[in-house]
Amino acid sequence: MTVLEIRIELKKGVADPEGKNTKKTLESLGFKGINSVKTVKMFEIDTDMPADEAVRSAEEMCRKLLANPVIQNYRIDVR
Amino acid sequence: MTVLEIRIELKKGVADPEGKNTKKTLESLGFKGINSVKTVKMFEIDTDMPADEAVRSAEEMCRKLLANPVIQNYRIDVR
Repeated sequence: MTVLEIRIELKKGVADPEGKNTKKTLESLGFKGINSVKTVKMFEIDTDMPADEAVRSAEEMCRKLLANPVIQNYRIDVR
Repeated sequence: MTVLEIRIELKKGVADPEGKNTKKTLESLGFKGINSVKTVKMFEIDTDMPADEAVRSAEEMCRKLLANPVIQNYRIDVR
């Protein structure tokens, strides 16, 4: 009924080695003009719940399992 | 100048074990009403290029490095 997009990204200042290495590799392939590459993890969750309940549930999922609050921020969008 | 969001997801029919396991774990934590969990990988690329050039460049990045065309689809959005 509700499809949620949960976007989990590193907090400012937390190292993103995958992003850094992707940038380096792109540059070694000849791509120019790249200032930064950041990696973001996303979960698309298809639920049986109405939107408000699904978002509330997703908040809890992030706190309990999906995100690490020490180094990550999350954002929940309804699609 | 242009920030691109490159979204890389598995093609239909390709197994997503990480998504499946996330769903199982959420259910074991007591979450109900989840039909499916899908994982998506995203790159946020900050470039010096104008939007049209950045998108063209990003297409090439996906083909050459970021996506595996056998199992993944990509979508490029300008933010």
